[in-house]
Amino acid sequence: MSISNFSINGTSINSTLYQGNSRQFNFLVDEPQELGGQDLAANPVEYLLAGYAGCLNVVINLVAKELDIKLYDIQININGNIEASKFLGQSEAGRAGFQSLDVDIDFVTNATQERINFLLKNVKQRCPVNDNLRNETPIQYQVTTSPYNEEVYA
Amino acid sequence: MSISNFSINGTSINSTLYQGNSRQFNFLVDEPQELGGQDLAANPVEYLLAGYAGCLNVVINLVAKELDIKLYDIQININGNIEASKFLGQSEAGRAGFQSLDVDIDFVTNATQERINFLLKNVKQRCPVNDNLRNETPIQYQVTTSPYNEEVYA
Repeated sequence: MSISNFSINGTSINSTLYQGNSRQFNFLVDEPQELGGQDLAANPVEYLLAGYAGCLNVVINLVAKELDIKLYDIQININGNIEASKFLGQSEAGRAGFQSLDVDIDFVTNATQERINFLLKNVKQRCPVNDNLRNETPIQYQVTTSPYNEEVYA
Repeated sequence: MSISNFSINGTSINSTLYQGNSRQFNFLVDEPQELGGQDLAANPVEYLLAGYAGCLNVVINLVAKELDIKLYDIQININGNIEASKFLGQSEAGRAGFQSLDVDIDFVTNATQERINFLLKNVKQRCPVNDNLRNETPIQYQVTTSPYNEEVYA
């Protein structure tokens, strides 16, 4: 058993801008102007897609090495649609997040399509972000409040 | 209806390093040395957590404004555990991704706990990343291969 703990800790800078840290890495997350932000950084779901693409890259390379499949180049593109009216509170219909995701992977390889299909099957089972997107994940919320004190926050 | 499309497009730089772009924003995703990388950037699941925290920030502020709840400070911390043996191919048991996630939110506010609970209930329903993590998301995979040509890739 090798449990790994991952975390982000951060603060709301303004109504769309969040600044957080994971280990030594600093994150800024904002929204484009159409969604009320200043576009100072990529938006939340773009971070989600970046993590997913990065995760596929790691697991593709790991499994390819195990299967002795040589990959000379790997392009990974992901896209999806969000019905913003749910998120913006203009509609209660549908879901808030991506309705579905399209993952396009282009390999330069001499491996057969059958071997590539076997690679992909294993990648789908072992990629952490793929798991958390395709399947339900339990989430516990803990909320604490402290009263506003004008002397401290002035 | 206001459908928004989001995407990332990028390339595998090496077995753990992915470089991608969403609009004008550039992403580098790597792994720490314990997971086979060079730790040049945050890892895939840290990007996922950053996107989630950033998304909570946006929706908390949006809903608070609608409810006329004044929030003087918001801290958002998220953490979770991954059983790395599944991802590394050492075990087929359990799931590859986060088993669960703990979201800790600290507000400085004079709103009552009841109002804050109502805020959180709405945020959970309207936060896109929260939706994609808590619930199943369909994913379509399209894989293409091109043969390796020594003259092109030399």
